[in-house]
This record gives sequence, structure tokens and C-alpha cells, in this order.
Amino acid sequence: MTASTTQSTDLTGRMIIAGVPVFGAGTQIHGIDPGTGENLEPAYGHGDDSDVERACAAAADAFADYRATSSDTRARFLETIADNIAALGDTLIERTVAESGLPLARITGEVGRTTGQLRLFASVLREGSWNGARIDPAQPERSPLPRADIRQRKIPLGPVAVFGASNFPLAFSVAGGDTASALAAGCPVVVKAHDAHPGTSELVARAITDAVVSTGMPSGTFSLLFGSGRGLGTALVTDPRIKAVGFTGSRSGGTALVAAAAGRREPIPVYAEMSSINPVFVMDGALATRGAELGRAFVASLTMGSGQFCTNPGLVIAVDGPGLQSFIDAAAAAVQESAPSTMLTPNIASSYAEGVRTLSDAVTVVARGSDTDAPNACRAALFDTDADTFLTSEAAQAEVFGASSLVVRCADSQQVRQVAAQLEGQLTATIHADESDHSEAGKLLSVLELKAGRILFDGWPTGVEVGHAMVHGGPFPATSDSRTTSVGSLSIERFLRPVAYQDVPKSLLPNAIADGNPDGIFRRIDGQLTQD
Amino acid sequence: MTASTTQSTDLTGRMIIAGVPVFGAGTQIHGIDPGTGENLEPAYGHGDDSDVERACAAAADAFADYRATSSDTRARFLETIADNIAALGDTLIERTVAESGLPLARITGEVGRTTGQLRLFASVLREGSWNGARIDPAQPERSPLPRADIRQRKIPLGPVAVFGASNFPLAFSVAGGDTASALAAGCPVVVKAHDAHPGTSELVARAITDAVVSTGMPSGTFSLLFGSGRGLGTALVTDPRIKAVGFTGSRSGGTALVAAAAGRREPIPVYAEMSSINPVFVMDGALATRGAELGRAFVASLTMGSGQFCTNPGLVIAVDGPGLQSFIDAAAAAVQESAPSTMLTPNIASSYAEGVRTLSDAVTVVARGSDTDAPNACRAALFDTDADTFLTSEAAQAEVFGASSLVVRCADSQQVRQVAAQLEGQLTATIHADESDHSEAGKLLSVLELKAGRILFDGWPTGVEVGHAMVHGGPFPATSDSRTTSVGSLSIERFLRPVAYQDVPKSLLPNAIADGNPDGIFRRIDGQLTQD
Repeated sequence: MTASTTQSTDLTGRMIIAGVPVFGAGTQIHGIDPGTGENLEPAYGHGDDSDVERACAAAADAFADYRATSSDTRARFLETIADNIAALGDTLIERTVAESGLPLARITGEVGRTTGQLRLFASVLREGSWNGARIDPAQPERSPLPRADIRQRKIPLGPVAVFGASNFPLAFSVAGGDTASALAAGCPVVVKAHDAHPGTSELVARAITDAVVSTGMPSGTFSLLFGSGRGLGTALVTDPRIKAVGFTGSRSGGTALVAAAAGRREPIPVYAEMSSINPVFVMDGALATRGAELGRAFVASLTMGSGQFCTNPGLVIAVDGPGLQSFIDAAAAAVQESAPSTMLTPNIASSYAEGVRTLSDAVTVVARGSDTDAPNACRAALFDTDADTFLTSEAAQAEVFGASSLVVRCADSQQVRQVAAQLEGQLTATIHADESDHSEAGKLLSVLELKAGRILFDGWPTGVEVGHAMVHGGPFPATSDSRTTSVGSLSIERFLRPVAYQDVPKSLLPNAIADGNPDGIFRRIDGQLTQD
Repeated sequence: MTASTTQSTDLTGRMIIAGVPVFGAGTQIHGIDPGTGENLEPAYGHGDDSDVERACAAAADAFADYRATSSDTRARFLETIADNIAALGDTLIERTVAESGLPLARITGEVGRTTGQLRLFASVLREGSWNGARIDPAQPERSPLPRADIRQRKIPLGPVAVFGASNFPLAFSVAGGDTASALAAGCPVVVKAHDAHPGTSELVARAITDAVVSTGMPSGTFSLLFGSGRGLGTALVTDPRIKAVGFTGSRSGGTALVAAAAGRREPIPVYAEMSSINPVFVMDGALATRGAELGRAFVASLTMGSGQFCTNPGLVIAVDGPGLQSFIDAAAAAVQESAPSTMLTPNIASSYAEGVRTLSDAVTVVARGSDTDAPNACRAALFDTDADTFLTSEAAQAEVFGASSLVVRCADSQQVRQVAAQLEGQLTATIHADESDHSEAGKLLSVLELKAGRILFDGWPTGVEVGHAMVHGGPFPATSDSRTTSVGSLSIERFLRPVAYQDVPKSLLPNAIADGNPDGIFRRIDGQLTQD
């Protein structure tokens, strides 16, 4: 456990398996500064099946002790991780900016979001409702049969595999929401780092490992692996000791993991957040009073972070007319004025260019952002088409990851609802509506509830608040499991399952369901919530 | 909707598709009295793909209106179904006894359980926590960015397919727990009836249909189909309008449905309760003080209902010695004295005989129940073996559905825990322990929490209380989704998903998350539960 106690932030290129630094024996990769296209030192070695084996064995070993820790102990562990990440300061921020090409202010904000998520789950642990405590007291006098004493609480599923995402190198990566919620639930975590930010991954993994040591958690509570998704990633998901998977990435990557997990002898849940075009509906009243204003604001959301948000507004749907034309004209002008911006990786930049080319063949190009010779740059793109073309074109309906969006001109509000009803599942759906639109918006809302995990009015979907009421999820293909969210406090439920305890001796009952409510948490007694 | 308004209980042999009686054009089957082996009138026609199409189309049509009904409206609908089933009285009970071979008292009790479940979900609807209401109020002054108003509630997934089980022709069938919880959640239900009790299915389906009409629900809220599992059942699960599946039955049947659902373009959750041998651990102190008494009580649980409970105790694990020998001797005597009893169907009876034969080849036969010439009779069977044989024999570990159980003799308490750790997932695990055993029982409890959905002390697993704290579920292969239960009020969560509402106009917010809490339900405001 040398690396876990060193104060140095010099990068080593090593994985961390249960506290032990290991240089992977496989393919060597480098972080790349996408703004220059140049490699960043050091080299990182991909791990192999033996590394997966060691990490999973350690996680399984750690599970019994880790899940037995108190809520407060795990809360302090999460807070220590947050402290350690914050203490990395500029070292972390500079490396993440270099590896991602994202602006300094965005990464600074993302550090705050990442530490904030960890602290949110610490508060969730202390509040205690996560236990799902229920008690149906015995009724020895009940006839014809007495009722036993039955109690219920939730326990962690077991070791969890987390796949870091490229587009949020901190908040959806090594110590991101999946890791935070799984650790909070009592599950050891094995992370497969994303190749796009290996240095960031190493720094954050060391911050977690230091917290494991300083708060006395078992060493197998956390491991970091490097490797390819189809190789090492599949080995990780199919290891019998892994009991759940968190993933944020492409539809093809997510569905491959879902299939691998379904093919196991013991199938396990995969929480894959995959694909969303995040439709924005602009209603007649809103278009009439502020079409141009909305068009400009839309492009600000579209181009933020080179459009590399899961919730980027890739589709605008409205009734055609002068209001929509004002919206499009203003949006087109804003797109033309938009500066090219660096994308996360060379692969993402070339996929974006390819996606824009395909879309250009299917629908009308309205505007492009200014051109550049800089490597890996995103030129924003705005398209339009009519509803009939949209409904019959697979290309028009496909997600283009980046600052590309398509305006669908509809004949009337009925056609707007028809388009809405034919959409695939989405992370978000947005409605812009004036007071005069609210009756029509209500009808649309009923349709969109069945399509999206989050519905927002008069704002933009980019920017996902981390709180108790947030849902970052939605029907397939937005995610592989619409019953869950990957952001916000509800996400802890992904890693828990209920267990009933019938007539268990009082001395053996866990605190959450013990007599006298020693932890002072909300519990459901005979169906009624109470803190008694 | 002729059938839905008639008061006659004469059976017709027809399915009911959105209120319309339809005689299936496929294979004709009969209920069979397993006690005599004779067919019961009338014939029932299996449906085909066109019937699935009609039922699913009607369910999808009904969904928008049905999910918009208030909690109280759905509660009254469920109560009306319960009233209608109770009103069938002896007509229902006599038919169910004839089709199942189960005793009158058991079926009378099962009617009460079935109506009780429906009324439980009515109370769950009125209590309101099922909405999962959460509100994070806006913080317009927050810096650097203001916080939007974000609210969360749960909505139903959509139409649900339910597969009736053979062993609980009422409580896990047409109006059983899956149907009750799905209807409570706001999901229309399409039931595939089990061929073992078509008359019971028709009677109950008519009771539901009458309730649909009298409480004004959309006609597609409920349909009943007859057909083969691999044919019509697969067509139902793969219909794109079906959004979740409830199933209780065999491991092969359940895994086939899981695979079919996973292969859809849009995968959907399958809640399959499949296979469990329900280990019973008898600890040294308990064996010493009451080994023989426990052996007799064990056989009473084992032979109840011909052993055809999902929670039937198929495995006993204990440290070998005089106490265990007393247990086995008493159990053997009780098994030898046990009368043969009729099994549910000819298929189940022959599978049981085959399973007992296979087990006889793998381990030692201790005792058999008395023989008989009666058709489809279950002769109880008791086996024993040592732990090493058990751990290396697939046959010894396989479930035998019926009154067969295997005693595993262990060398010491460490080997008991070793056997526990190698078990597959279970619905239940039971510990019999005296005060002196509690320390050792605590260690075993930690192992069993990871193996079973319910752990009980000093009782028997048969008999599943329908309440708020019950878990009837467990890790694979006990079920296909360990995060859920198919019995008790928590089971409604299987058919719900969360949706976030951001800055949605107050006039468009549903009651559950409206200002002023019009329904007076518990909600989580900024993370804190409150009824304000």
C-alpha cells in the first residue's frame, strides 16, 4: 500500500488494486490533450484478467466487514474522500483540464459537484431512510393464526463495477455518482477507468485509497483498473463476485454490458445511462412572445461544453410559423457566431463529424459554427426538417453526441404530440410555454411523462441538479433501467435489496429495525411512518 | 361486454379481452380433478397471437385514462374486486378445490388472503407513500447558480403481463399479488391463466371485469388469456406495449421469460419467482433440548399442501450427533405416518416422482410416506447425506417440488456455515436456536442475509404473511430480481418509476407533489420526510 500513504501527486501510471499500485501488463495508453492532440505523460498499462480476479477477490473479501460498518462510519469515509479530492486542488484541476479539453471553470465546478455528491450521500446515510425499515409487530392473539414479528431492512447487493464516463471526468467517473452511491449503500467498488482521463483517474483513486486507509475500511473496498471495455470491462461484469454495474456511455457500450450481465449464470442489474436527444418543445405562445430570445438561449445550452452533455438539447419540436422562424433565425445566427471548441477525445470529435455528415444527408442544414484548423474541434450545427420526414428517418432520430440539434417543424399541436408519442425514451424533455400555452402543455406533459425521466419548463436540460428530487434516468434507451436514477439521493436504491427478519431474537437485530429505534430513523410500523 | 354484466356463474370456457368474452381458436384444454384424474367441464380454447394483440392494444389504450385515476378511485376498484371475489362464495371455492386437489380449508383461507391482498393495496394507495413524493424547493438566491424547483413522484410503468401460478390458484393467480400490485400502481394487466385452473381463472376474471365496469375503469384495464407459456406467453412478453412481467413458476419457465424480455428491442423488467429449497438450520442447543419435537414439527411443515409451497423446507442442515439423530428419527416416523395427498396436476405429480427417484440415487433414503393407488398422489420423502456429498452433488442441491426434504449432516458449526455460504439464492432461510445458540446464530445470520429474502427463527417457512414488512423474494435463482418482493405492500414498487418535474407550472403539478400537500401524504422536502 505504498501509493496510498505517499503525499506525492506525481503520476505513476499504475492501477490500484485493494490499495496496492500495479502497473498493468497490457497495452500502454496515454492521456491525450485534445486541444493539441499530444500525449500526456506518464504511460498507463492496461490490466488483464488476473487484475480483475484480484480486484474482485479483494472486493468480495472486503464486503462482509464493509457492509457491517455503521451509517456514520461510512458517512465519515465519504466525507474523507471528498476532503481528499478537494485537497488535490490545482494538481487535479490542471490535469483534468489537460486531459479533457474542458474549460477551467467547468472543471472547477465539477470538483465541487463531485465532493458535493459524496457529502450528499453522507447526509443520506445519517438520515437513515435508506434502510427502508419496516416493522409489523407480532400479534400473538390474532385468530385464526397468530402473526409473527416481521421486520424489514435493506442491505447492499455486494461488490459493484463502475465504468467511468468520458464527458464528466470527475462527477461521473472514479469518485462520481455511481461510486458514491454504491459505497454509501455498503458495496465495495471496482472502477474501470475511462482511457480518456487516466491521470485524473489515478489522482482520484489515490484520494479514495487514502480515505480507505485513514478511516480503517477494508483494503478491498475500492480498486481502480485500466483496460479496454470489451476485454477487461466484460471480464469485470461477468465476474461472479460482482453483483451490480454502473455505466455511463454509448448505447452500444451499454447494451453490450447489459447483454453480458444477462448471460451470466446469476444475472445482475446493470444501470447503464446511454442515449438521449432531449427534445425541447416550444409552444405557440412562447414562440410568439419570445421566439428569438429562446433561439439564442437554446444555442447557449446547445454549445455548452461542446455539446458533450447527456442532456444536450438535440431536438426542437414546434408548430411551424413566424414564431418558430424567429426562433430558428436567432438560433442560426448564434450558431454561426459560435466559436469552435475542443471535444473530449479524437474519437468523439471524429464521431461528431461523421454524425453531422449523416444528418446533413437526411435533413436541411440551417447553420454551422465557424471553421477551424485546431485539432478535435466541434463546429456547432443546426438542422431543420418537417415532422413527416423526421418520423420516417432513422438518421434524423439518431443521437449525435456534440453541439448538433435538429428543429422539427410540425403542422399543428396535434402533430407535435404525435412526434412526442413516437420518441424513444429520454433523460429529459423540455417545454417552453407561456401562460396561454398551459392547457396544451398539460396534454403534452401527459405524453412526455411516459418518455422521459425529467420534464422541465422554461429552462434548458443541461445542468443536472444533484439533490433529493432529481431523476437522471428514463425509459430505454436513455437508460437500461427506468426504475432508477444515476444522480441524486434516490440513486442509492440501485445497490440495495430488502430482507425480512421474522421472529429474529432481539439481540441479533440490526439497529435499523431494533426495538426502541436506537438510530432515531423514520420507520414504517404496521404501515405507518414514524420516528418512534 | 355481455359476460361482465351477467350474474350467472356458469362457466363458458371463454377468455375475457377488455371485457369481451372470446372463445380461443387454439388447442382446447380442460381443468382436471387431480384426485380422480377426470376432466372438468367446460373446455377452454387457447388463444393465439391475435388475442394477445387485442389484449395489449386495449391495455395500451386504457393506460392513459387508468393511470390518471386518483389513488382513492383505484382503491375503490380494488375493494370492489375483493367484494366480487368474496361474493362468489362456494361456487368459487368448490371449483378451485376440484381443479387443484387442495383441501377446502386451504382454499377458503386462500380466498381470504386474496381479498385481503387487494384491500391491503387499497390502504397503500390511500396512505400515499407509494407516490415517492420529493420536493427540492427553488433557491433563486443561491450562488453561483440559482436552484430550480424540482419535484419527484412515481408513475406506473405501463401495461403488465401476469402469469398465474399453479400452486396458489387464487393468491398468486388471476387476482393475485402481481395483479393487485400492478393495478394499484396504475398499470393495466393482461393475465395468462394457468392451464391447471381454467374455471377458477374464468370466475375470478369475471369478478375483476365486473369491477372494471361498475367502477367505471377503461375496459382494457384487464384481460384474461388462455394459452401455452412458450407460445402465447412469449408473444405476450415480447409485445412492445407490455412494460413489465410478473411470474411465479419453474426455474426453466422463469428464465425463458427473462431471456425473452431481455431480447426485446426495449428490454423490460421480469419479476419471476422461481426456485427455492428453503434451508432450515437447526443449532446444537435446540437439537439438544427439543430435537424430536422439532423433527415432528418440521414434517408438518414439509407435508402441508403436499409440499407444494414455494417456501417448502427442502433442506435441513445441522451438526451431526445425538440431537440431530433424535430429529431425524422423529421426522422419519412422522413421514412414515404421513398420508399420501393429491398433487396439483398430473405433470407435477410425475415430476415429483422423478425428482425423488433422482435424489434416491444421490443420497440415502431415510423414510417414505405410505403408498397409495390414488392418482397424482404425493408420498412424502426424507433423505439424508453428509456435507461433503451435498456440496459436490448437483442432484442433492436441486429443488424437488413437493414434500421431499434432505438432511445434511455437518461435522461442525464451521461446516454448517460453509454449506450456507455455498447455497444458491433462496426465498427463505430458517434457524432454530436456543438462547445458548444465539452467538453462533448471529454468525450464520450474516451469511444467510446474502442468500435469502426472508430469515426466520424458530418457526417454519411455509405460510407467508401478507403485510408491510414481508419480503417474498431473494437472490437468483429464487427470483430474477432480488431488489423486489412479490408479496406485501412493497411489491407495488415493481411497477413504478420516478419522474422529476422541474419548474413545472403549479396548475399542471399532480396532487402528490402540489403545493400545500392536498392529499396529506408523507413527502420528502429538501431531504426531510414531512406531512406538511
